[in-house]
Amino acid sequence: MKRLLTLIATLTLALGAMAQQSLWGSEPIISPEINSDNSVTFRLAAPNANHVKLTGDFMPNEPVVVDGKELGFTVPKQASMTRNSQGVWEYTTEPLASELYNYHFIVDGLAIKDPNNAYIQRDIANLMNYFIIGGGKADNYKVQDVPHGTVARVWYDSPSATTTYRRMSIYTPAEYQTESQKHYPVLYLLHGMGGDEEAWLCTGRAAQILDNLIAEGKAEPMIVVMTNGCPQHAAAPGESHEGMYKPYGVGAMDGSFESSFGDVMAYIDSHYRTIQSAEGRAIAGLSMGGFHAYHISANRPTDFGYIGLFSAAIMPRKGVESPIYKDMDSKLATLFGHSPKLYYIAIGKDDFLFEANVELRQRLDKAGYPYIYNQSEGGHVWRNWRDYLVDFTQRLFR
Amino acid sequence: MKRLLTLIATLTLALGAMAQQSLWGSEPIISPEINSDNSVTFRLAAPNANHVKLTGDFMPNEPVVVDGKELGFTVPKQASMTRNSQGVWEYTTEPLASELYNYHFIVDGLAIKDPNNAYIQRDIANLMNYFIIGGGKADNYKVQDVPHGTVARVWYDSPSATTTYRRMSIYTPAEYQTESQKHYPVLYLLHGMGGDEEAWLCTGRAAQILDNLIAEGKAEPMIVVMTNGCPQHAAAPGESHEGMYKPYGVGAMDGSFESSFGDVMAYIDSHYRTIQSAEGRAIAGLSMGGFHAYHISANRPTDFGYIGLFSAAIMPRKGVESPIYKDMDSKLATLFGHSPKLYYIAIGKDDFLFEANVELRQRLDKAGYPYIYNQSEGGHVWRNWRDYLVDFTQRLFR
Repeated sequence: MKRLLTLIATLTLALGAMAQQSLWGSEPIISPEINSDNSVTFRLAAPNANHVKLTGDFMPNEPVVVDGKELGFTVPKQASMTRNSQGVWEYTTEPLASELYNYHFIVDGLAIKDPNNAYIQRDIANLMNYFIIGGGKADNYKVQDVPHGTVARVWYDSPSATTTYRRMSIYTPAEYQTESQKHYPVLYLLHGMGGDEEAWLCTGRAAQILDNLIAEGKAEPMIVVMTNGCPQHAAAPGESHEGMYKPYGVGAMDGSFESSFGDVMAYIDSHYRTIQSAEGRAIAGLSMGGFHAYHISANRPTDFGYIGLFSAAIMPRKGVESPIYKDMDSKLATLFGHSPKLYYIAIGKDDFLFEANVELRQRLDKAGYPYIYNQSEGGHVWRNWRDYLVDFTQRLFR
Repeated sequence: MKRLLTLIATLTLALGAMAQQSLWGSEPIISPEINSDNSVTFRLAAPNANHVKLTGDFMPNEPVVVDGKELGFTVPKQASMTRNSQGVWEYTTEPLASELYNYHFIVDGLAIKDPNNAYIQRDIANLMNYFIIGGGKADNYKVQDVPHGTVARVWYDSPSATTTYRRMSIYTPAEYQTESQKHYPVLYLLHGMGGDEEAWLCTGRAAQILDNLIAEGKAEPMIVVMTNGCPQHAAAPGESHEGMYKPYGVGAMDGSFESSFGDVMAYIDSHYRTIQSAEGRAIAGLSMGGFHAYHISANRPTDFGYIGLFSAAIMPRKGVESPIYKDMDSKLATLFGHSPKLYYIAIGKDDFLFEANVELRQRLDKAGYPYIYNQSEGGHVWRNWRDYLVDFTQRLFR
């Protein structure tokens, strides 16, 4: 038996290394396994390990303690997994609420991915295993048995950007294929610091959210344009001729992305059947993308009828000389003078940008500008941004 | 210092688990690092590990030995990595030839991904880190500073398939956007057992290969259609409402995929500006996809002017009753009676399907049917299929 296990282990390692078509490379271990009560069982074959733990954003938080001293913030607990006689470690959670969750194992102190879970999300340089518990709000993020839109990765010329040939992701609703004369509204959806044109599709589940809401009649069929908000990069990591560098948390809050945004709109309006007025255009973004949406909409006061700021990084740009960031009081006055149909602010009460958004709301309140405010639990996290997108898109173009 | 390291380790683990935007989640470790002489340095922080090894398809092969007995085949060697005083393990290879390589670490016997490499390929259920050494043939697979085509994931109706609403990937060349009246030839490109509509794009690097060859004038601008050849699945794992199951090596060699192929062609010809004749159509596939291409072209003898069989799984389907597989001698006679411009067979001399392809060539030779034969080194591996695609596409539509 030991000999057989050694052989299997050797072959598994070897075949993985050979980039052989992986017909024989997978172990008969299922992890994660979502049980009927929505508890989840995780398994890892690690016969030589002394201690295997599991952590994820479904675990209760606990204070961080170093050398006996609490550091004043919390992180998810680590659960010890139990080893069986074959060297497979296992842990089953409590029943979990409906959500998209991330997790990883910690084997003798080393954080590793789950080798039995092929589903992975990239956030900047970080790869994360994930799973979805349905039966509640995360049904919005699951692939359902509904018509599916087309997702295209497109390169476009952007003569006014730092990199003049750039990549973006475009979602067109399922009916766009058959309603060949109809023109559609467009949501421009912007990512945060360090993100790229893949972020809202991968971690944000934007295509699934739109497919599901449109199929249920809860959102209007719309085009969704997901740009790359870092003008120093033409595309997501590995997708441009910069090559396969290690991505880090760069962004642009110097006016360069905002001032090149007309190139994006010109491309979309000339290549897709769009409604080319404020009634047919929305712009929204998370974190740095909220900052971008805030300034793009104020600098183009007649272009967007719907504006969404999700955990927006609203902050003064002292020392930044871009005209994009100047005279915001007067620009906001002009924007609200055109009575946008929706000005939407959402943030979690634990978000480190919460105070900045309090100040933003005070500024709008003082001037008497109407907006909708969605305050949620939690912090600066994707689960909030997915929920904000679900809420925001139902308010558009109707 | 120890306290600081503990804190950093705690935070790194914690932030990864929180699905926080990963602005602070990455370590300052670069791995892999491609050195100027094309040697590659790998690094892994694993301070608690006793023994860390590295293996990959760039390592020399060695015989598999279990209990002192050679088993008669070879696998890539495992190299021991060296630990520095901070607990970072390191290994530098010899200078490597130009290629796309896969690798992983083995920490105290446990195979893990490189946490510092965000670049990963999925082959069925297996995720593999990869890197590319340029300066030679792999320049065909790298993203170069050239015009880039559009890649779209599209859902289409397939009334004659097992699952009647299905997903495929479609590459349109860069100039398709601007040459708005021109009609383009189409290459239908099929994956192997267990693969899906993502396989040729991800592991096969089809979009990069086409971008580069077209930009160099070595290949004609063409549309490339990458289907899902497993009719029991509507889409790649996680992309259909089957949900996030663990993918395994399924396929279809029962005639069902081949007999539904007209639905794919009808969709493409009605939604894209195509050349709708044998002169403007090619079909090629790897392994099971080569088997599919062999039978689809023989059953539709006037539709394809170019046929490519890459490591094709040509084998008799005894006990399978589909009319698709019957009367192949007479079908091949009809096909070759229409003088296809190219019948192309490629296989590695170590491929387990080599003998089956010897028999195929004997069958063609005996009947006097012309074909081009590309025999390479190596076995049933993606690096061969990428090279075959580079060679095959240069022979199409000119």
